Amino acid sequence: MGKAEETRKFIIETVAPIFNMHGYEGTALSQLTEATGLTKGALYGNFKNKQEIALAALEYNISRIRSEISDTVGPIRNSCDKLAVFAVFYRNMFDEISRRGGCPILNAAIDSDDTELPLHGFVIRSIDQWMGMLILIVTRGIKRGEIKKDIDPEAFATLFISLIEGGIMLSKATGARMHLERNVAYLIDKINADLRI
Amino acid sequence: MGKAEETRKFIIETVAPIFNMHGYEGTALSQLTEATGLTKGALYGNFKNKQEIALAALEYNISRIRSEISDTVGPIRNSCDKLAVFAVFYRNMFDEISRRGGCPILNAAIDSDDTELPLHGFVIRSIDQWMGMLILIVTRGIKRGEIKKDIDPEAFATLFISLIEGGIMLSKATGARMHLERNVAYLIDKINADLRI
Repeated sequence: MGKAEETRKFIIETVAPIFNMHGYEGTALSQLTEATGLTKGALYGNFKNKQEIALAALEYNISRIRSEISDTVGPIRNSCDKLAVFAVFYRNMFDEISRRGGCPILNAAIDSDDTELPLHGFVIRSIDQWMGMLILIVTRGIKRGEIKKDIDPEAFATLFISLIEGGIMLSKATGARMHLERNVAYLIDKINADLRI
Repeated sequence: MGKAEETRKFIIETVAPIFNMHGYEGTALSQLTEATGLTKGALYGNFKNKQEIALAALEYNISRIRSEISDTVGPIRNSCDKLAVFAVFYRNMFDEISRRGGCPILNAAIDSDDTELPLHGFVIRSIDQWMGMLILIVTRGIKRGEIKKDIDPEAFATLFISLIEGGIMLSKATGARMHLERNVAYLIDKINADLRI
């Protein structure tokens, strides 16, 4: 890795939690210079503008959690078990996710949904990928005879993401873990009662 | 209403959607002076600091939607009908809620949950009130014999808020109404299948 790439990597990893905590739109340049110890000039020598840093930080935050999910869910064969472990992942990771400032997709969605920033396009693609991952698990489960045929994969994916994101929002805002715990328990009950053959 | 009160009211109503769109933490002072046509000095003649304006804007945004909910849900007697209409309210109001920048509780929760701002305390109280409103409807419904006894009012309140907030986030970020529509339909099915006697 060259010197320029190393600096870029250092900047992204340092500012990633700051953008996730203080907003992909709202973080001030002074917070970035303070955290990195670099001058404005040095930051803009590596990135075109603040928006480009915000986008790189978001990409980093999302790819990090996505690879943690793949590691956890990947090895499981049965589709219903895969969905259950996918849900439990968020309960187990709640403290760590909170420490990093919350779910990056949720945070960036709220920050960017009234803007035309490139950030907004990346959020839409990330939601599509998350939906796609869940839809694929359910569709495969139906094909393999592990999940009942009357389940609508898209509606289940919307339900899953809403309960996880709604639970993270409520638990993180109030400090009461029970909201996310209730929603994860609800999803597991639903998987066992309505999806599993 | 005195002149000072009138100016304060004008400022709050003007900046309320701006904070809701651009963040209760992230909105810049220049966005406030531009929208109101007032100088920084004039703004700070009416409010102690930017945080006090943000808090007043959040109070205004939440009280506005809360009174719209009361008007819609208030007249209904049957507890299950009340819950169903409460859910449908968000589907019917989605365009208007989007136009105002989304759900103020959701937006302010994401903006403030990594801070110690007074805003964060107000968000916690607003979530408690929303939970309390739902818990009261379910508890009353059980007492009156309209809702099954085995329903946990608190777990239902968490589920309800998560599906509404998760649906608003997904639909507003992606521009696809179907997410919120699916969740509202899911809640109505659940009310009729699992709650209603």
